[in-house]
Amino acid sequence: MKAFVMQGIGETAIVEKERPEPGPMDAILKPTVGLICTSDCHTVHGAIGDRDNLTLGHEVVGIVDEVGSEVEDFMAGDRVAVGAITPDWNAEAAQEGHPSQSNGALGGWKFANVKDGTFAEYVHVNDADGNLAPIPKGVTDHQAVYTADMLSTGFAGAENADIPMGGTVAIFAQGPVGLMATKGAALQGAGQIIAVETRENRKELARVYGATDIVDFQDGDPVAQIMDLTNDRGVDAAIEALGADETLQNCIEVTKPGGTVSNVGYHGEGEFRHIPREEWGVGMSEISIVNDLCPGGRVRISRLLRLLQAGKVDPRKMTTHEFSFDEIETAFEMMDDKRDDIIKPLIRFD
Amino acid sequence: MKAFVMQGIGETAIVEKERPEPGPMDAILKPTVGLICTSDCHTVHGAIGDRDNLTLGHEVVGIVDEVGSEVEDFMAGDRVAVGAITPDWNAEAAQEGHPSQSNGALGGWKFANVKDGTFAEYVHVNDADGNLAPIPKGVTDHQAVYTADMLSTGFAGAENADIPMGGTVAIFAQGPVGLMATKGAALQGAGQIIAVETRENRKELARVYGATDIVDFQDGDPVAQIMDLTNDRGVDAAIEALGADETLQNCIEVTKPGGTVSNVGYHGEGEFRHIPREEWGVGMSEISIVNDLCPGGRVRISRLLRLLQAGKVDPRKMTTHEFSFDEIETAFEMMDDKRDDIIKPLIRFD
Amino acid sequence: MKAFVMQGIGETAIVEKERPEPGPMDAILKPTVGLICTSDCHTVHGAIGDRDNLTLGHEVVGIVDEVGSEVEDFMAGDRVAVGAITPDWNAEAAQEGHPSQSNGALGGWKFANVKDGTFAEYVHVNDADGNLAPIPKGVTDHQAVYTADMLSTGFAGAENADIPMGGTVAIFAQGPVGLMATKGAALQGAGQIIAVETRENRKELARVYGATDIVDFQDGDPVAQIMDLTNDRGVDAAIEALGADETLQNCIEVTKPGGTVSNVGYHGEGEFRHIPREEWGVGMSEISIVNDLCPGGRVRISRLLRLLQAGKVDPRKMTTHEFSFDEIETAFEMMDDKRDDIIKPLIRFD
Amino acid sequence: MKAFVMQGIGETAIVEKERPEPGPMDAILKPTVGLICTSDCHTVHGAIGDRDNLTLGHEVVGIVDEVGSEVEDFMAGDRVAVGAITPDWNAEAAQEGHPSQSNGALGGWKFANVKDGTFAEYVHVNDADGNLAPIPKGVTDHQAVYTADMLSTGFAGAENADIPMGGTVAIFAQGPVGLMATKGAALQGAGQIIAVETRENRKELARVYGATDIVDFQDGDPVAQIMDLTNDRGVDAAIEALGADETLQNCIEVTKPGGTVSNVGYHGEGEFRHIPREEWGVGMSEISIVNDLCPGGRVRISRLLRLLQAGKVDPRKMTTHEFSFDEIETAFEMMDDKRDDIIKPLIRFD
Repeated sequence: MKAFVMQGIGETAIVEKERPEPGPMDAILKPTVGLICTSDCHTVHGAIGDRDNLTLGHEVVGIVDEVGSEVEDFMAGDRVAVGAITPDWNAEAAQEGHPSQSNGALGGWKFANVKDGTFAEYVHVNDADGNLAPIPKGVTDHQAVYTADMLSTGFAGAENADIPMGGTVAIFAQGPVGLMATKGAALQGAGQIIAVETRENRKELARVYGATDIVDFQDGDPVAQIMDLTNDRGVDAAIEALGADETLQNCIEVTKPGGTVSNVGYHGEGEFRHIPREEWGVGMSEISIVNDLCPGGRVRISRLLRLLQAGKVDPRKMTTHEFSFDEIETAFEMMDDKRDDIIKPLIRFD
Repeated sequence: MKAFVMQGIGETAIVEKERPEPGPMDAILKPTVGLICTSDCHTVHGAIGDRDNLTLGHEVVGIVDEVGSEVEDFMAGDRVAVGAITPDWNAEAAQEGHPSQSNGALGGWKFANVKDGTFAEYVHVNDADGNLAPIPKGVTDHQAVYTADMLSTGFAGAENADIPMGGTVAIFAQGPVGLMATKGAALQGAGQIIAVETRENRKELARVYGATDIVDFQDGDPVAQIMDLTNDRGVDAAIEALGADETLQNCIEVTKPGGTVSNVGYHGEGEFRHIPREEWGVGMSEISIVNDLCPGGRVRISRLLRLLQAGKVDPRKMTTHEFSFDEIETAFEMMDDKRDDIIKPLIRFD
Repeated sequence: MKAFVMQGIGETAIVEKERPEPGPMDAILKPTVGLICTSDCHTVHGAIGDRDNLTLGHEVVGIVDEVGSEVEDFMAGDRVAVGAITPDWNAEAAQEGHPSQSNGALGGWKFANVKDGTFAEYVHVNDADGNLAPIPKGVTDHQAVYTADMLSTGFAGAENADIPMGGTVAIFAQGPVGLMATKGAALQGAGQIIAVETRENRKELARVYGATDIVDFQDGDPVAQIMDLTNDRGVDAAIEALGADETLQNCIEVTKPGGTVSNVGYHGEGEFRHIPREEWGVGMSEISIVNDLCPGGRVRISRLLRLLQAGKVDPRKMTTHEFSFDEIETAFEMMDDKRDDIIKPLIRFD
Repeated sequence: MKAFVMQGIGETAIVEKERPEPGPMDAILKPTVGLICTSDCHTVHGAIGDRDNLTLGHEVVGIVDEVGSEVEDFMAGDRVAVGAITPDWNAEAAQEGHPSQSNGALGGWKFANVKDGTFAEYVHVNDADGNLAPIPKGVTDHQAVYTADMLSTGFAGAENADIPMGGTVAIFAQGPVGLMATKGAALQGAGQIIAVETRENRKELARVYGATDIVDFQDGDPVAQIMDLTNDRGVDAAIEALGADETLQNCIEVTKPGGTVSNVGYHGEGEFRHIPREEWGVGMSEISIVNDLCPGGRVRISRLLRLLQAGKVDPRKMTTHEFSFDEIETAFEMMDDKRDDIIKPLIRFD
């Protein structure tokens, strides 16, 4: 089968690989639609170290091709979604309430990290009963594929922010995760949703997904703008969706005492992140700093599919470009450059 | 000044009363717009015992007429909203996180319970800094008056239900509190929102406020219908917004193990409510039964006003009738009878 | 192998059975020490319906005899504990945070319910990696066997009660689960711990496990006594550890507005449990009614073992009687009659 | 009256001042016993900026001397405790659940910050009903004075750490706050309590208060020692009770994915605190960083007094030195130097 792989840092290629085989609890999935993620680009640039011939990709939906002997709830032919994170559900961290951390920090992240990812003609999914979700009628593959990471991660940013009904929130950066954090804040009942962004098409989409105010950092210090918009009280919660030191600091600076800073950005560089001591209230401000790795699993993905089915969110507006699997190298390069106002490139496998 | 009072069980009248005086932390409010609540009717019928010459009403907005000597944040002329519940914020229950229960069970409920209510030309509000909220520009009195009880109580029903993002919920009865619980469930990110109701105009409004499914109990057992709609899994949460024994039992019956039953109905009659033992999992199903008295206070009301300001909810669709203060007895009778498909009657004080 | 079984309602016997075989993820355990539970008696009396030749028992520790091909963390010869509840960790309810409810209400309860229990020479344990826990050095089998149910259930009663540090709690009934709820309340930092009981040896043990006050219902209405002990404020939380309608009502009656009623009693009889409407604050008191089925799993059991290892609790004081496996019928009868001030009878398998 | 004051940075003196007068909701307290806190020393050294003639001290108990006209629950002659933090209970932050942050960051901290502190013959307490707590019979002034700050702050460190029953925790530094965090961890049911300290008398006291393991950083890297003690899994929670950058980093390094870092140290110096990016899981480890300012108020202090009354904690072991009020300058200097293995110096006012 064909697979789109990383061949050492900075190198990608389409290669031939063996079709994977399922263990007793696993499934083999035949992808129909996938998405490229900025973190695929990070990976190729070496963010998680070198990899040799590792298939890339973690956002995909498709058709079950084969299941292992112990799988009970799925069979070949089922149309399914699968999370970017596929936890080991009996692991200690999962029992502790953190399935994404099963078997070590970020251990639920298997695709394109510790095993082959989803940009291939066949994809191995561990624990099919625990990690696949049937796609309901009326939900297209194009919609469903957004549950794997963008909806799950973005919404988690909003859920962890613990925004009170009618409360105030600022979301730093409106890439696809930030946009879904903005939508997530709306779905959590936030009353004032301040989106920080400078690109025009992303600012527009932020409005579509529920932002009540836009702060463009090219118009001046975003912290000052947000304090103005909140009558100098600061926000109940701030969401970091970029992965940068400065925006994390900004989040702490705009959050009121007792509020929450919720990180979903992937912090790929630097030895430290910096907490500004005074704005942190010398360690006594009751500001919490929380974070998450994309929640996965059958229940999570099924809930997100239910929101799509009910029409509560339409993620397709983020699909700015479409490609066939043959064109994936071009798609990957465009995503890497953020060329042509790209937000999410969709890959069709047929 | 004129006041609409209860003169013993079953008796109401418009009478002359002395204008109240503020204590050092209090304010006197001149109402502009009010709403009649079904619980006013319950009160007149004796639900909380006899009352002599007690002014009725607890849903109002208006203009500050006078403030006490220690009030810092408000002055005469301010346009303000006030919750139906006006807690004593330094009381033990408030410090314990339950301000509505300050000074005894339901002790934050003062209007038309332990002191004169809001259907008068002047209204006394305890702890003005703690219990008034400025109405922002762009929010009309007609919108704002819904924060006092309907939005606060209905939304609390949804917040306490602990509905996971994309989860499933059933709301029993679509009176104004139930409708706002439905809207609250939508604002909390529910994926499937099943509204139980039989009156046509309420069923329509439920759709407007976010219901994805309507269950009409005249079409058969609502429990069976809800189990059908959820593939026999039951809902993550059920909200009781009627105050009846049967619907509370239904809530337990449709809630999946580990789910939540959230009561906001006012249970006015009977010695007991009944928990069906087997559906309760013989006390081991991990179904929680929680409830709330309408949250009040400056922060709560301000957050709800922010939702109105942002256009996230339009409660005016529930105003089926309007009256002048002179006509309040007619309005009260119609509400008591639920005549003419009435949902909420609005009272204008000018 | 020998097994102690239920042969229809009211009938028990020691019989010969086939030794069980492990599936790929399972283990076979050779018991060393077990405990008889009152719920074994309930089962024999028909509480969960008829059973034919079902091995009884769910509290046991022992030595791993064999593991399935996929088991990673255990091998023959390991000394291990296992919870009374052995969840399916990838099931939907487990992913929702309720592993004890995996695969339907109370579905994690497999031993002596849907499969053979632990009173046999060999015991089948599903998902060994997820459900076994190594017993640390310095913890005896006699101590460790209490983690299976008594510590896990009793402590859960206290944990779910959400007792604030220094808060007040009443625990109704001081059987072994109630005693461990009392100890659990002490371990959760309760300031006033009121144990309700009438048997002398249980009252004494309640003191040992941390009760600050004893209420004997033979001295008068326990509700009145508890209100007296709390200056008429009521308790922050009440724990039901008996499984009776009257004590559940008492729990609601003694709990202050905003408090929690935490049920761990097994309610074996009757169509309904009764919520007293007025003491429930007509559905607006903010009293929560929660419950639990004994938490199981490797993490839970390991944490409980850690408490034993650190000497934070000594459950052996509850072992009033000891028997060999040959004498289990006598032990069972004594437990059924609650003869000779029995609290827990220990079974030795060697 | 006499008062011990700060007269500019680095200067203290005993001076004569006017006795304060109560506002309508306030009380005047006549101290009997006080404690000196290291943060008094920080204040004199300029940590919160310059102050002129500000009375020092925030830990005291005493007798009510006079109450304002609106005070309901206290009268002259009452023996009472008062928290170091005395919130404005109707403020927005208090309504949001963060009373210590009322009226701005750390705004509930009034004594020796924005108004005169407690080292004087008479002390003004705002909102007597909300902020005083009666001392129960059987609790001495010497015990009760520890509720003001040491018990409240230390225990908060443990409560916020969200330690599961039987879980593991490391507490960095065993000064009086750290010792009470250690005791708090024990009272929250921790199973393994690792205290980090190097002074012998503090290590001994840590054992007394519940530590199961001691890590002396003079014996090597405390992070490595803690990883060893936890079989390389890390702890469920780490508590920072020193206020240093390095220990905060250590906390993040020893906390397992999904765990909690709970800060109660006062971070008095430096522009930033540093989050080690990799150990933080590149922002996706699900490690939360939380913090607290000493909780105050009648309910909090009453709960802590209840723990003293029940004998669940004896803080007097921390009192290494005693002085009369006349000798307070000597006491202050010893505390500043941490001379003679001082932990807490007690001041007697009679």
